[in-house]
Amino acid sequence: MQESCVVVFSGGQDSTTCLYWAKRHFKKILAVTFDYGQRHRIELDCAAKICADFDIPQTVLPLNSFTALGGNSLTDPNQAVEGLGRGHLPDSFVPGRNLVFLTLAAAFAWQRNISDLVTGVCQTDYSGYPDCRLNTMRSLESSISLGMDSLFHIHTPLMHLSKKQSVELAQEVGAFDALAFSHTCYNGVFPPCGKCPACELRAKGFAEAGVADPLMTRAKA
Amino acid sequence: MQESCVVVFSGGQDSTTCLYWAKRHFKKILAVTFDYGQRHRIELDCAAKICADFDIPQTVLPLNSFTALGGNSLTDPNQAVEGLGRGHLPDSFVPGRNLVFLTLAAAFAWQRNISDLVTGVCQTDYSGYPDCRLNTMRSLESSISLGMDSLFHIHTPLMHLSKKQSVELAQEVGAFDALAFSHTCYNGVFPPCGKCPACELRAKGFAEAGVADPLMTRAKA
Repeated sequence: MQESCVVVFSGGQDSTTCLYWAKRHFKKILAVTFDYGQRHRIELDCAAKICADFDIPQTVLPLNSFTALGGNSLTDPNQAVEGLGRGHLPDSFVPGRNLVFLTLAAAFAWQRNISDLVTGVCQTDYSGYPDCRLNTMRSLESSISLGMDSLFHIHTPLMHLSKKQSVELAQEVGAFDALAFSHTCYNGVFPPCGKCPACELRAKGFAEAGVADPLMTRAKA
Repeated sequence: MQESCVVVFSGGQDSTTCLYWAKRHFKKILAVTFDYGQRHRIELDCAAKICADFDIPQTVLPLNSFTALGGNSLTDPNQAVEGLGRGHLPDSFVPGRNLVFLTLAAAFAWQRNISDLVTGVCQTDYSGYPDCRLNTMRSLESSISLGMDSLFHIHTPLMHLSKKQSVELAQEVGAFDALAFSHTCYNGVFPPCGKCPACELRAKGFAEAGVADPLMTRAKA
Protein backbone atom coordinates (compact mmCIF):
# COMPACT_ATOMS: atom_id res chain seq x y z
CA MET A 1 0.00 0.00 0.00
CA GLN A 2 1.34 3.41 -0.98
CA GLU A 3 1.64 6.39 1.31
CA SER A 4 -0.48 9.40 0.30
CA CYS A 5 -2.51 10.67 -2.59
CA VAL A 6 -4.68 13.59 -3.59
CA VAL A 7 -8.03 12.72 -5.15
CA VAL A 8 -9.70 15.27 -7.42
CA PHE A 9 -13.14 14.87 -5.93
CA SER A 10 -16.24 16.41 -7.45
CA GLY A 11 -18.81 14.47 -5.48
CA GLY A 12 -19.98 12.76 -8.65
CA GLN A 13 -20.35 9.06 -9.31
CA ASP A 14 -16.92 8.59 -10.86
CA SER A 15 -14.86 10.51 -8.35
CA THR A 16 -16.74 8.86 -5.47
CA THR A 17 -15.75 5.49 -6.88
CA CYS A 18 -12.17 6.77 -7.18
CA LEU A 19 -12.17 7.99 -3.57
CA TYR A 20 -13.01 4.49 -2.39
CA TRP A 21 -10.57 2.94 -4.86
CA ALA A 22 -7.86 5.23 -3.47
CA LYS A 23 -8.64 4.12 0.07
CA ARG A 24 -7.68 0.59 -0.98
CA HIS A 25 -4.35 1.70 -2.44
CA PHE A 26 -3.14 4.57 -0.25
CA LYS A 27 -2.76 4.95 3.50
CA LYS A 28 -3.67 8.59 3.52
CA ILE A 29 -6.06 10.38 1.21
CA LEU A 30 -6.68 14.07 0.76
CA ALA A 31 -9.66 15.14 -1.31
CA VAL A 32 -9.59 18.35 -3.33
CA THR A 33 -12.91 19.71 -4.60
CA PHE A 34 -13.19 22.66 -6.96
CA ASP A 35 -15.78 25.34 -6.55
CA TYR A 36 -15.55 26.59 -10.12
CA GLY A 37 -18.97 28.16 -10.42
CA GLN A 38 -20.68 24.97 -11.56
CA ARG A 39 -24.40 25.58 -11.85
CA HIS A 40 -24.96 22.18 -10.25
CA ARG A 41 -23.94 23.64 -6.86
CA ILE A 42 -25.59 20.70 -5.10
CA GLU A 43 -22.50 18.73 -6.17
CA LEU A 44 -20.44 20.62 -3.58
CA ASP A 45 -22.78 19.61 -0.76
CA CYS A 46 -22.67 16.01 -1.96
CA ALA A 47 -18.88 16.08 -2.02
CA ALA A 48 -18.69 17.48 1.51
CA LYS A 49 -21.12 14.88 2.86
CA ILE A 50 -19.36 11.93 1.23
CA CYS A 51 -15.97 13.06 2.57
CA ALA A 52 -17.37 13.64 6.05
CA ASP A 53 -19.07 10.22 6.11
CA PHE A 54 -15.89 8.53 4.89
CA ASP A 55 -13.65 10.56 7.21
CA ILE A 56 -11.54 12.00 4.38
CA PRO A 57 -10.00 15.46 4.86
CA GLN A 58 -11.43 17.66 2.13
CA THR A 59 -10.18 20.97 0.80
CA VAL A 60 -12.48 23.07 -1.36
CA LEU A 61 -10.45 25.24 -3.70
CA PRO A 62 -12.14 28.22 -5.32
CA LEU A 63 -11.59 28.73 -9.03
CA ASN A 64 -13.38 31.71 -10.51
CA SER A 65 -11.72 31.78 -13.94
CA PHE A 66 -14.11 29.51 -15.82
CA THR A 67 -17.15 31.58 -14.92
CA ALA A 68 -15.28 34.64 -16.15
CA LEU A 69 -14.42 32.84 -19.40
CA GLY A 70 -18.08 31.89 -19.85
CA GLY A 71 -19.41 30.34 -23.01
CA ASN A 72 -20.26 26.88 -21.72
CA SER A 73 -23.43 25.47 -20.29
CA LEU A 74 -21.78 24.12 -17.12
CA THR A 75 -20.89 27.47 -15.63
CA ASP A 76 -23.17 29.78 -17.60
CA PRO A 77 -26.72 29.83 -16.21
CA ASN A 78 -28.03 31.38 -19.42
CA GLN A 79 -26.97 28.48 -21.59
CA ALA A 80 -29.03 25.27 -21.72
CA VAL A 81 -27.33 21.86 -21.32
CA GLU A 82 -28.26 20.02 -24.45
CA GLY A 83 -26.72 20.83 -27.80
CA LEU A 84 -23.32 20.86 -29.33
CA GLY A 85 -20.77 23.59 -28.98
CA ARG A 86 -17.72 24.28 -31.13
CA GLY A 87 -16.81 21.50 -33.54
CA HIS A 88 -18.07 18.15 -32.36
CA LEU A 89 -17.73 18.99 -28.70
CA PRO A 90 -20.72 19.22 -26.35
CA ASP A 91 -21.84 22.66 -25.18
CA SER A 92 -21.03 21.59 -21.63
CA PHE A 93 -17.34 21.36 -22.55
CA VAL A 94 -15.35 23.75 -20.37
CA PRO A 95 -12.06 24.04 -22.25
CA GLY A 96 -9.15 23.23 -19.99
CA ARG A 97 -11.25 22.17 -17.02
CA ASN A 98 -9.53 18.89 -16.22
CA LEU A 99 -6.13 20.32 -17.13
CA VAL A 100 -6.54 23.14 -14.64
CA PHE A 101 -8.11 20.91 -11.97
CA LEU A 102 -5.21 18.47 -12.11
CA THR A 103 -2.57 21.18 -12.26
CA LEU A 104 -4.00 22.87 -9.18
CA ALA A 105 -4.38 19.51 -7.44
CA ALA A 106 -0.72 18.89 -8.26
CA ALA A 107 0.21 22.27 -6.78
CA PHE A 108 -1.74 21.34 -3.62
CA ALA A 109 0.03 17.96 -3.55
CA TRP A 110 3.44 19.53 -4.22
CA GLN A 111 3.04 21.72 -1.16
CA ARG A 112 2.56 18.54 0.89
CA ASN A 113 5.27 16.43 -0.77
CA ILE A 114 2.66 14.16 -2.32
CA SER A 115 3.27 12.90 -5.84
CA ASP A 116 0.21 10.73 -6.52
CA LEU A 117 -2.98 12.17 -7.96
CA VAL A 118 -6.21 10.31 -8.62
CA THR A 119 -8.92 11.40 -11.04
CA GLY A 120 -12.11 9.78 -12.29
CA VAL A 121 -11.67 10.69 -15.94
CA CYS A 122 -12.62 7.97 -18.38
CA GLN A 123 -12.14 7.73 -22.10
CA THR A 124 -14.54 4.89 -22.76
CA ASP A 125 -17.67 6.91 -22.12
CA TYR A 126 -15.94 10.23 -22.18
CA SER A 127 -18.93 12.30 -23.21
CA GLY A 128 -16.91 13.93 -25.95
CA TYR A 129 -14.55 15.71 -23.55
CA PRO A 130 -11.04 15.39 -24.99
CA ASP A 131 -9.42 16.18 -21.63
CA CYS A 132 -10.72 12.90 -20.23
CA ARG A 133 -8.57 10.80 -22.53
CA LEU A 134 -5.47 8.82 -21.61
CA ASN A 135 -3.18 10.67 -24.02
CA THR A 136 -4.15 14.00 -22.44
CA MET A 137 -3.53 12.65 -18.94
CA ARG A 138 -0.15 11.14 -19.87
CA SER A 139 0.95 14.39 -21.44
CA LEU A 140 -0.31 16.41 -18.50
CA GLU A 141 1.58 14.11 -16.12
CA SER A 142 4.77 15.15 -17.94
CA SER A 143 3.82 18.82 -17.99
CA ILE A 144 3.17 19.09 -14.27
CA SER A 145 6.21 16.95 -13.44
CA LEU A 146 8.41 19.26 -15.52
CA GLY A 147 6.67 22.43 -14.42
CA MET A 148 7.03 21.65 -10.72
CA ASP A 149 10.34 19.82 -11.05
CA SER A 150 8.88 16.87 -9.20
CA LEU A 151 7.71 13.49 -10.50
CA PHE A 152 3.93 13.12 -10.44
CA HIS A 153 1.77 10.16 -11.25
CA ILE A 154 -1.84 10.61 -12.32
CA HIS A 155 -3.90 7.53 -11.49
CA THR A 156 -6.99 7.02 -13.62
CA PRO A 157 -8.69 3.86 -12.34
CA LEU A 158 -11.77 4.36 -14.53
CA MET A 159 -9.93 5.23 -17.75
CA HIS A 160 -10.76 2.08 -19.69
CA LEU A 161 -13.94 1.03 -17.94
CA SER A 162 -17.39 1.20 -19.43
CA LYS A 163 -20.06 2.81 -17.25
CA LYS A 164 -21.22 -0.72 -16.45
CA GLN A 165 -17.75 -1.69 -15.28
CA SER A 166 -17.53 1.52 -13.22
CA VAL A 167 -20.64 0.47 -11.35
CA GLU A 168 -19.07 -2.94 -10.76
CA LEU A 169 -15.86 -1.32 -9.53
CA ALA A 170 -17.89 0.82 -7.14
CA GLN A 171 -19.36 -2.37 -5.70
CA GLU A 172 -15.94 -4.00 -5.49
CA VAL A 173 -14.27 -1.15 -3.58
CA GLY A 174 -17.20 -0.58 -1.24
CA ALA A 175 -18.34 2.72 -2.76
CA PHE A 176 -21.84 1.57 -3.56
CA ASP A 177 -23.66 3.00 -0.53
CA ALA A 178 -21.88 6.32 -0.91
CA LEU A 179 -23.17 6.59 -4.49
CA ALA A 180 -26.59 7.29 -3.00
CA PHE A 181 -25.20 10.72 -2.10
CA SER A 182 -23.12 11.32 -5.22
CA HIS A 183 -24.32 13.87 -7.70
CA THR A 184 -24.35 13.60 -11.47
CA CYS A 185 -27.14 15.75 -12.97
CA TYR A 186 -25.83 18.74 -14.92
CA ASN A 187 -29.03 20.60 -14.11
CA GLY A 188 -28.14 20.42 -10.43
CA VAL A 189 -31.40 19.05 -9.10
CA PHE A 190 -32.41 16.27 -6.71
CA PRO A 191 -34.14 14.05 -7.67
CA PRO A 192 -31.98 14.12 -10.83
CA CYS A 193 -33.59 15.53 -14.02
CA GLY A 194 -33.00 12.24 -15.81
CA LYS A 195 -32.74 14.02 -19.12
CA CYS A 196 -29.34 15.72 -19.33
CA PRO A 197 -26.46 13.79 -20.94
CA ALA A 198 -24.88 13.12 -17.52
CA CYS A 199 -28.08 11.62 -16.10
CA GLU A 200 -28.56 9.49 -19.20
CA LEU A 201 -25.00 8.16 -19.07
CA ARG A 202 -25.33 7.31 -15.39
CA ALA A 203 -28.63 5.50 -15.90
CA LYS A 204 -27.14 3.51 -18.77
CA GLY A 205 -24.33 2.20 -16.58
CA PHE A 206 -26.60 0.98 -13.80
CA ALA A 207 -29.02 -0.54 -16.31
CA GLU A 208 -26.19 -2.45 -17.98
CA ALA A 209 -24.80 -3.59 -14.64
CA GLY A 210 -28.28 -4.80 -13.76
CA VAL A 211 -28.43 -3.05 -10.40
CA ALA A 212 -30.53 -0.19 -9.08
CA ASP A 213 -28.78 3.16 -8.71
CA PRO A 214 -28.69 3.86 -4.95
CA LEU A 215 -29.23 7.54 -5.78
CA MET A 216 -32.50 6.76 -7.52
CA THR A 217 -33.52 4.47 -4.67
CA ARG A 218 -32.92 7.36 -2.28
CA ALA A 219 -34.80 9.74 -4.58
CA LYS A 220 -37.83 7.50 -4.50
CA ALA A 221 -37.71 6.92 -0.74
CA MET B 1 2.31 37.78 -40.95
CA GLN B 2 0.04 35.42 -39.03
CA GLU B 3 -3.57 36.13 -38.13
CA SER B 4 -4.26 36.25 -34.39
CA CYS B 5 -2.63 35.43 -31.11
CA VAL B 6 -3.25 35.64 -27.38
CA VAL B 7 -0.44 37.13 -25.30
CA VAL B 8 -0.22 36.19 -21.63
CA PHE B 9 0.42 39.70 -20.41
CA SER B 10 1.41 40.49 -16.85
CA GLY B 11 2.52 44.06 -17.40
CA GLY B 12 6.09 43.12 -16.56
CA GLN B 13 9.20 43.76 -18.59
CA ASP B 14 9.22 40.41 -20.37
CA SER B 15 5.58 40.23 -21.35
CA THR B 16 5.67 43.87 -22.48
CA THR B 17 8.53 42.97 -24.80
CA CYS B 18 6.49 39.98 -26.00
CA LEU B 19 3.43 42.13 -26.64
CA TYR B 20 5.46 44.31 -28.98
CA TRP B 21 7.14 41.26 -30.51
CA ALA B 22 3.70 39.80 -31.18
CA LYS B 23 2.60 42.99 -32.91
CA ARG B 24 5.36 42.39 -35.45
CA HIS B 25 4.24 38.81 -36.13
CA PHE B 26 0.45 38.82 -35.84
CA LYS B 27 -2.25 41.02 -37.34
CA LYS B 28 -4.50 40.86 -34.29
CA ILE B 29 -3.42 40.56 -30.68
CA LEU B 30 -5.52 39.89 -27.62
CA ALA B 31 -3.88 40.33 -24.23
CA VAL B 32 -4.92 38.21 -21.26
CA THR B 33 -3.87 39.37 -17.81
CA PHE B 34 -4.39 37.30 -14.67
CA ASP B 35 -5.54 38.80 -11.44
CA TYR B 36 -4.33 35.92 -9.26
CA GLY B 37 -3.98 37.78 -5.99
CA GLN B 38 -0.42 38.92 -6.67
CA ARG B 39 0.72 41.18 -3.86
CA HIS B 40 2.29 43.43 -6.46
CA ARG B 41 -1.17 44.72 -7.49
CA ILE B 42 0.42 47.67 -9.19
CA GLU B 43 1.32 45.23 -11.98
CA LEU B 44 -2.35 45.12 -13.01
CA ASP B 45 -2.49 48.89 -13.42
CA CYS B 46 0.71 48.82 -15.46
CA ALA B 47 -0.71 46.09 -17.69
CA ALA B 48 -3.90 48.04 -18.31
CA LYS B 49 -2.02 51.23 -19.12
CA ILE B 50 0.39 49.56 -21.54
CA CYS B 51 -2.49 47.84 -23.39
CA ALA B 52 -4.49 51.04 -23.57
CA ASP B 53 -1.52 53.04 -24.87
CA PHE B 54 -0.76 50.35 -27.48
CA ASP B 55 -4.43 49.91 -28.39
CA ILE B 56 -4.48 46.20 -27.56
CA PRO B 57 -7.77 44.69 -26.33
CA GLN B 58 -7.09 43.35 -22.84
CA THR B 59 -9.06 40.83 -20.81
CA VAL B 60 -8.35 40.51 -17.10
CA LEU B 61 -9.19 37.03 -15.91
CA PRO B 62 -9.67 36.45 -12.20
CA LEU B 63 -7.96 33.42 -10.67
CA ASN B 64 -8.47 33.01 -6.95
CA SER B 65 -7.05 29.50 -6.53
CA PHE B 66 -3.41 30.41 -5.83
CA THR B 67 -4.29 32.70 -2.94
CA ALA B 68 -6.38 29.86 -1.51
CA LEU B 69 -3.46 27.46 -1.92
CA GLY B 70 -1.16 29.93 -0.17
CA GLY B 71 2.35 29.06 0.89
CA ASN B 72 4.29 31.33 -1.46
CA SER B 73 5.59 34.83 -1.10
CA LEU B 74 3.98 36.13 -4.30
CA THR B 75 0.38 35.76 -3.17
CA ASP B 76 0.82 35.52 0.60
CA PRO B 77 1.27 38.96 2.20
CA ASN B 78 2.65 37.39 5.37
CA GLN B 79 5.61 35.81 3.64
CA ALA B 80 8.68 37.86 2.76
CA VAL B 81 10.20 37.69 -0.73
CA GLU B 82 13.75 36.67 -0.13
CA GLY B 83 14.65 33.12 0.86
CA LEU B 84 14.30 29.67 -0.57
CA GLY B 85 11.22 27.50 -0.41
CA ARG B 86 10.93 23.75 -0.92
CA GLY B 87 13.99 22.08 -2.41
CA HIS B 88 16.09 24.51 -4.37
CA LEU B 89 13.15 26.58 -5.51
CA PRO B 90 12.66 30.22 -4.50
CA ASP B 91 9.95 31.02 -1.95
CA SER B 92 8.23 33.10 -4.63
CA PHE B 93 7.60 29.93 -6.66
CA VAL B 94 3.85 29.47 -7.13
CA PRO B 95 3.59 25.84 -8.17
CA GLY B 96 1.69 25.50 -11.41
CA ARG B 97 1.39 29.21 -12.07
CA ASN B 98 2.56 29.30 -15.68
CA LEU B 99 0.88 25.97 -16.41
CA VAL B 100 -2.48 27.33 -15.26
CA PHE B 101 -1.97 30.73 -16.91
CA LEU B 102 -1.24 29.16 -20.28
CA THR B 103 -4.03 26.60 -19.98
CA LEU B 104 -6.57 29.31 -19.22
CA ALA B 105 -5.14 31.50 -21.98
CA ALA B 106 -5.56 28.52 -24.30
CA ALA B 107 -9.18 28.13 -23.18
CA PHE B 108 -9.73 31.82 -23.91
CA ALA B 109 -8.06 31.39 -27.31
CA TRP B 110 -10.02 28.20 -28.05
CA GLN B 111 -13.28 30.07 -27.56
CA ARG B 112 -12.12 32.50 -30.27
CA ASN B 113 -10.65 29.95 -32.69
CA ILE B 114 -7.13 31.23 -32.01
CA SER B 115 -4.33 28.70 -31.79
CA ASP B 116 -1.27 30.86 -31.11
CA LEU B 117 -0.21 31.80 -27.59
CA VAL B 118 2.69 34.04 -26.63
CA THR B 119 4.42 34.04 -23.25
CA GLY B 120 7.49 35.79 -21.88
CA VAL B 121 8.94 32.80 -20.04
CA CYS B 122 12.67 32.43 -20.33
CA GLN B 123 14.92 29.62 -19.27
CA THR B 124 18.19 31.50 -19.47
CA ASP B 125 17.53 33.67 -16.44
CA TYR B 126 14.61 31.64 -15.22
CA SER B 127 14.92 32.60 -11.58
CA GLY B 128 14.70 28.97 -10.56
CA TYR B 129 11.13 28.54 -11.78
CA PRO B 130 10.93 25.18 -13.54
CA ASP B 131 7.72 26.15 -15.36
CA CYS B 132 9.67 28.75 -17.37
CA ARG B 133 11.74 26.14 -19.17
CA LEU B 134 11.41 25.03 -22.77
CA ASN B 135 10.76 21.38 -21.94
CA THR B 136 7.81 22.40 -19.74
CA MET B 137 6.39 24.62 -22.47
CA ARG B 138 6.77 21.97 -25.18
CA SER B 139 5.04 19.41 -22.99
CA LEU B 140 2.28 21.84 -22.06
CA GLU B 141 1.75 22.64 -25.72
CA SER B 142 0.96 18.95 -26.23
CA SER B 143 -1.23 18.76 -23.15
CA ILE B 144 -3.46 21.67 -24.09
CA SER B 145 -3.59 20.59 -27.74
CA LEU B 146 -4.74 17.13 -26.67
CA GLY B 147 -7.01 18.38 -23.89
CA MET B 148 -8.84 20.81 -26.15
CA ASP B 149 -8.59 18.67 -29.30
CA SER B 150 -7.10 21.62 -31.16
CA LEU B 151 -3.53 22.30 -32.19
CA PHE B 152 -1.90 25.08 -30.16
CA HIS B 153 1.46 26.70 -30.54
CA ILE B 154 3.12 28.40 -27.58
CA HIS B 155 5.53 31.09 -28.75
CA THR B 156 8.34 31.91 -26.34
CA PRO B 157 10.39 34.68 -27.98
CA LEU B 158 12.52 35.24 -24.87
CA MET B 159 13.21 31.57 -24.08
CA HIS B 160 16.89 31.53 -24.93
CA LEU B 161 17.72 35.20 -24.42
CA SER B 162 19.81 36.59 -21.61
CA LYS B 163 18.35 39.57 -19.77
CA LYS B 164 20.74 41.72 -21.78
CA GLN B 165 19.41 40.27 -25.04
CA SER B 166 15.84 40.81 -23.83
CA VAL B 167 16.59 44.50 -23.41
CA GLU B 168 18.03 44.53 -26.93
CA LEU B 169 14.95 42.76 -28.30
CA ALA B 170 12.73 45.35 -26.58
CA GLN B 171 14.63 48.05 -28.45
CA GLU B 172 14.38 46.14 -31.71
CA VAL B 173 10.59 45.64 -31.58
CA GLY B 174 9.84 49.14 -30.36
CA ALA B 175 8.89 48.19 -26.81
CA PHE B 176 11.47 50.36 -25.14
CA ASP B 177 9.29 53.36 -24.29
CA ALA B 178 6.55 51.11 -22.95
CA LEU B 179 9.03 49.55 -20.53
CA ALA B 180 8.89 52.82 -18.58
CA PHE B 181 5.44 51.68 -17.46
CA SER B 182 6.15 47.98 -17.05
CA HIS B 183 6.33 46.57 -13.55
CA THR B 184 8.84 44.11 -12.18
CA CYS B 185 9.29 44.57 -8.41
CA TYR B 186 7.90 41.67 -6.37
CA ASN B 187 7.29 44.04 -3.50
CA GLY B 188 4.84 45.95 -5.67
CA VAL B 189 6.18 49.45 -5.14
CA PHE B 190 7.02 52.37 -7.40
CA PRO B 191 9.80 53.44 -7.47
CA PRO B 192 10.92 49.78 -7.46
CA CYS B 193 12.47 48.44 -4.21
CA GLY B 194 15.67 47.53 -6.10
CA LYS B 195 16.36 44.71 -3.67
CA CYS B 196 14.03 41.81 -4.51
CA PRO B 197 15.27 39.11 -6.91
CA ALA B 198 13.07 40.48 -9.72
CA CYS B 199 14.44 44.01 -9.38
CA GLU B 200 18.00 42.72 -9.27
CA LEU B 201 17.54 40.62 -12.39
CA ARG B 202 16.00 43.54 -14.26
CA ALA B 203 18.80 45.91 -13.27
CA LYS B 204 21.40 43.36 -14.35
CA GLY B 205 19.92 43.16 -17.85
CA PHE B 206 19.91 46.91 -18.44
CA ALA B 207 23.40 47.22 -16.98
CA GLU B 208 24.71 44.54 -19.32
CA ALA B 209 22.95 46.09 -22.30
CA GLY B 210 24.56 49.38 -21.37
CA VAL B 211 21.34 51.39 -21.46
CA ALA B 212 19.30 53.10 -18.78
CA ASP B 213 16.08 51.39 -17.72
CA PRO B 214 13.25 53.72 -18.83
CA LEU B 215 11.39 52.71 -15.66
CA MET B 216 14.22 54.00 -13.50
CA THR B 217 14.44 57.15 -15.60
CA ARG B 218 10.74 57.72 -14.97
CA ALA B 219 11.17 56.96 -11.27
CA LYS B 220 13.84 59.64 -10.99
CA ALA B 221 11.86 62.22 -12.98
